[in-house]
Amino acid sequence: MRISELSDATGVPVPTIKFYLREGILPPGRRIATNQAEYDEDHVRRLRLIRALAEVGGLPLATVRDVLRAVDDPSLPMHDALGIAHRALAPDLGEQGDPAVAEARAEVDRFLEELGWEVSPDAPGRDELAVALATLRRLGWPDADTRLFTRYANAADRLAAREVERTTPTGATRAEMMERVVIGTVVFDAVISALRRLAQERRSVAGFAAPKARRPTRRARPNHARRNDP
Amino acid sequence: MRISELSDATGVPVPTIKFYLREGILPPGRRIATNQAEYDEDHVRRLRLIRALAEVGGLPLATVRDVLRAVDDPSLPMHDALGIAHRALAPDLGEQGDPAVAEARAEVDRFLEELGWEVSPDAPGRDELAVALATLRRLGWPDADTRLFTRYANAADRLAAREVERTTPTGATRAEMMERVVIGTVVFDAVISALRRLAQERRSVAGFAAPKARRPTRRARPNHARRNDP
Repeated sequence: MRISELSDATGVPVPTIKFYLREGILPPGRRIATNQAEYDEDHVRRLRLIRALAEVGGLPLATVRDVLRAVDDPSLPMHDALGIAHRALAPDLGEQGDPAVAEARAEVDRFLEELGWEVSPDAPGRDELAVALATLRRLGWPDADTRLFTRYANAADRLAAREVERTTPTGATRAEMMERVVIGTVVFDAVISALRRLAQERRSVAGFAAPKARRPTRRARPNHARRNDP
Repeated sequence: MRISELSDATGVPVPTIKFYLREGILPPGRRIATNQAEYDEDHVRRLRLIRALAEVGGLPLATVRDVLRAVDDPSLPMHDALGIAHRALAPDLGEQGDPAVAEARAEVDRFLEELGWEVSPDAPGRDELAVALATLRRLGWPDADTRLFTRYANAADRLAAREVERTTPTGATRAEMMERVVIGTVVFDAVISALRRLAQERRSVAGFAAPKARRPTRRARPNHARRNDP
């Protein structure tokens, strides 16, 4: 297909495609005339992955390039390539050197070990949890220790089990898997955040709203929490 | 206590406290001399809530003021005050008028109705889910419909049930509840996001890593997902 057709197929404007070509993050098409190149499905896929990284993930171009290099390096195990994407998508914490965070980090490491989770010692999630724990303490959250994370860890683990299955369907290419991991990580973070606030709202209606006639008391109400369980 | 002691007690620098006083979001202390005021525990709590909103929640000052006004208005039901905080903490979507989002929004509304969740028609979470769904479609996610959200909704609902209980302990003031809702919403979003990436990593180790000697096959391995369940 021509560059204009590639643009139609992906929704990426032609000037943006040309920019990606110049920057070398989109491989050149097959030259068919002095001023014309032919693009194929690989270009469509690659553009989709670039958009996922840059637009949905909000990554700067240099980081997009690093992730694409990991996808394209067949000597790199898929797990390591995914790790590079994960690290790229982690928030920038910038709270290095805070002794309260360092202390929390040691507790987080113990917590993950007790859960039996095998994750690399430099996984950014460890520091993110440490910052969260230090923040809770700084703001006077009652009983702020890693036990607060247990329910969240169990929920995350159940979801991740499905997510990892879903991102590695039989026959998927490395680029496809990477695309799913990136989109999955970013979009479903937003999904969980939105659903958690919606669930809090609907449960706060039950918990706080002015009592209605003949509504049973708080303790006596049936536990709606389980109604929608799988 | 003096302003310097208030600063020590909260970790908020004196100039910042003075700024909050000038802006009227921290009530003045009790004047004890021409140039001296006395502050109390209410000021400590209020400063903590301001920090939660401004630093952890990243809200601009005008929004902090709106939320504080809701906390301070005893005629406003607590549920409505929490709703104001929730809305303030919701991400700015800026995708209005996109027909794909509008279509997704109708599906999200149906989805929430089927779940039996009572949430207000203008809850920002509805639009956030619609944008997420439209994004998945735009990027070619397979089978992108609201059924993808079911597991996340169930997980969020289970967590929210506990969260709402925890944010409304017996005897807590409105300000304390609001503080917990704000910190809880923001910090635990980060906690879930970090734990989800950690869980994906540990499950991707199992799924992708080079097989080790005598490791049982994927199907035969025990389901570690349930080991840490509550």
